[in-house]
Amino acid sequence: MRTYLECIPCFFKQALDIFRLLKLSEDLQKRILDEISTFIPHFSLSSKPPEMGKRIYQTIKKFTQIQDPLREYKVQSNLVVEKVIEKLDIPSMNLADLMKLSGAGNFIDFVIKQGNVEEKELLQHLRRTLVKSFKHFQFQQFLTHLESAQTILYIGDNAGEAVFDREVIRKFPPGKRVYFAVRGKPVINDVTEREAREIKMDEVAEIISTGDETPGVLLESSSPKFREIFHSSDLILAKGQGNYETLSEVEAPLFFLLQIKCSVVARDIKGEVGDIVLIKSSKFSHHAKL
Amino acid sequence: MRTYLECIPCFFKQALDIFRLLKLSEDLQKRILDEISTFIPHFSLSSKPPEMGKRIYQTIKKFTQIQDPLREYKVQSNLVVEKVIEKLDIPSMNLADLMKLSGAGNFIDFVIKQGNVEEKELLQHLRRTLVKSFKHFQFQQFLTHLESAQTILYIGDNAGEAVFDREVIRKFPPGKRVYFAVRGKPVINDVTEREAREIKMDEVAEIISTGDETPGVLLESSSPKFREIFHSSDLILAKGQGNYETLSEVEAPLFFLLQIKCSVVARDIKGEVGDIVLIKSSKFSHHAKL
Repeated sequence: MRTYLECIPCFFKQALDIFRLLKLSEDLQKRILDEISTFIPHFSLSSKPPEMGKRIYQTIKKFTQIQDPLREYKVQSNLVVEKVIEKLDIPSMNLADLMKLSGAGNFIDFVIKQGNVEEKELLQHLRRTLVKSFKHFQFQQFLTHLESAQTILYIGDNAGEAVFDREVIRKFPPGKRVYFAVRGKPVINDVTEREAREIKMDEVAEIISTGDETPGVLLESSSPKFREIFHSSDLILAKGQGNYETLSEVEAPLFFLLQIKCSVVARDIKGEVGDIVLIKSSKFSHHAKL
Repeated sequence: MRTYLECIPCFFKQALDIFRLLKLSEDLQKRILDEISTFIPHFSLSSKPPEMGKRIYQTIKKFTQIQDPLREYKVQSNLVVEKVIEKLDIPSMNLADLMKLSGAGNFIDFVIKQGNVEEKELLQHLRRTLVKSFKHFQFQQFLTHLESAQTILYIGDNAGEAVFDREVIRKFPPGKRVYFAVRGKPVINDVTEREAREIKMDEVAEIISTGDETPGVLLESSSPKFREIFHSSDLILAKGQGNYETLSEVEAPLFFLLQIKCSVVARDIKGEVGDIVLIKSSKFSHHAKL
């Protein structure tokens, strides 16, 4: 997905949201926003929004001299979701329900704005989600592809949310080779190998890094190993808006599972802000057999 | 009022709102946003937000080569409000009600976002407003000052809204000298001398220009004549957020009448977004007699 003009104010808002968590001085915040401003004239609307996300986060790292500014927040998110799922009857849920839950878990970065993840609030949100109707939830189509797939690439998004992803993968039919993709370097609250290992993702999938710090998947910036897995998987499930924004035009056997968080993505997907969607990519295509 | 970091994304959103009305090409919009980006690093947080408003609008004028880009919108706003007040029983209203109505008329630039001012929508909004409770509406204090004032300076804000201002001035006690201040050059949809004359503001007040194109009142950039009137008036009523943002720290016999449109002003005023307020300036001070 390309960048729209409406994304420009949003880039600055995203930085402010991160600042709030980091409790930076106003002077430092202003200096970071000043540097972000200088990127705008060089940022083409044909770029993908997460390319700016990457630059914003690199700037925050540079000015704060912290290599993983939201590390603590990611650890806390994982812990809270572990507690929350203990209160939900996960073993009795079917795959469709777990995928809805995992889509709802994509809500984690909404909560980020308030500075902490409240267990009670999250639990309420998830319970409300499970009784909601899902307009764009192409589960049967997904299941058909899942059943015939040998190799599945599951592309993670936020820490915390990844705990739900783990439970989803646990419910996949047995005998599949599953990769769980994480960001190559810390970027915002996205799951990296470190947080994936901490929640024992490696017990249900092979963890693979994109090798890149974009909060999405830019194939041209990814490692050769990641690209190889991407191009040889029979089915790819990409979580969250960032992955949608970078992969929506890539021809691959892709499904997207996300909560729509802005009007730009809503327009692109033909959904509404707040919707949790599971959709087959409009560019869905099986990889050409080599 | 100083500028806060939250104002930065908002500057870009304000430009986008104006673009929507002007139906500019995406390429031109991007070029204007690019130029606005270059101002950010040179814009101090100790500046007042309307100083950036002025620069944004100057940039739009420069790129579009139109000297009054929202002229048509201002004419339409005046016409719609003239029609709307015919449907309200203005003669039977007291000054307090008219001031509430005029505060509600400050809503005009909310409507701007949708591209036109709908008569029916505005009428509904105004009727709902008149039955609402007003938390910060210091009318009795205002009235006391009004009664003893000989010279009153009424600082206008948006076109359209100015029609209500005219009706408010008509209800002032007789025998006062009333000035109605307008912007010195077109800026956004703010009322200038042209639109003030078109609604016959000169029948109820002497029209005076600030001599400046800031969407607020920056005394240091105003004409000597405006400054003289400002410093010799017994009472000043400033309409809207822009005038609040530029005048909230000026020691003068000031009252502000506005609808709170953003969380930054809400925090400064200790009100809530959406509130219509009439407040005595925290720096209220009678001018030293010369």
